[in-house]
Amino acid sequence: MKTKALFYHAGCPICVSAEQKLVGSLDASKFDIEVIHLGEDKARVAEAERVGVKSVPALIIDGEVLHINFGADIAALR
Amino acid sequence: MKTKALFYHAGCPICVSAEQKLVGSLDASKFDIEVIHLGEDKARVAEAERVGVKSVPALIIDGEVLHINFGADIAALR
Repeated sequence: MKTKALFYHAGCPICVSAEQKLVGSLDASKFDIEVIHLGEDKARVAEAERVGVKSVPALIIDGEVLHINFGADIAALR
Repeated sequence: MKTKALFYHAGCPICVSAEQKLVGSLDASKFDIEVIHLGEDKARVAEAERVGVKSVPALIIDGEVLHINFGADIAALR
């Protein structure tokens, strides 16, 4: 069974760049990757904060939050 | 041909955690991944700085630096 991976972003240049490099580099045989644009899906900002996302872009694997570089603070997306 | 990916770290808990989650999640059919412990291999700190590493852990894919969370400032490793 594949592991769910979540990639939260906000459409910023740093987010898009990280998405292109990282999401496409993950082993697709191991992961189902969901990409969530928090700028367009505000309802999921609270969910992102609950799992520990402090800034975007961020990748969640097995419940662990990996903040990738720094695009925007999660508080700016509420 | 596989792309070279570099993972720089310093053996800190945040580094080890990121390494376990991320390095094992990359598509091994696409990447040759080299893991560099800058605490044990000080000679490579300058190399890391040249490619743009500001802090560890950091993953380099196609020359792009992805800083993952924050373990230590590169300046602290010189």
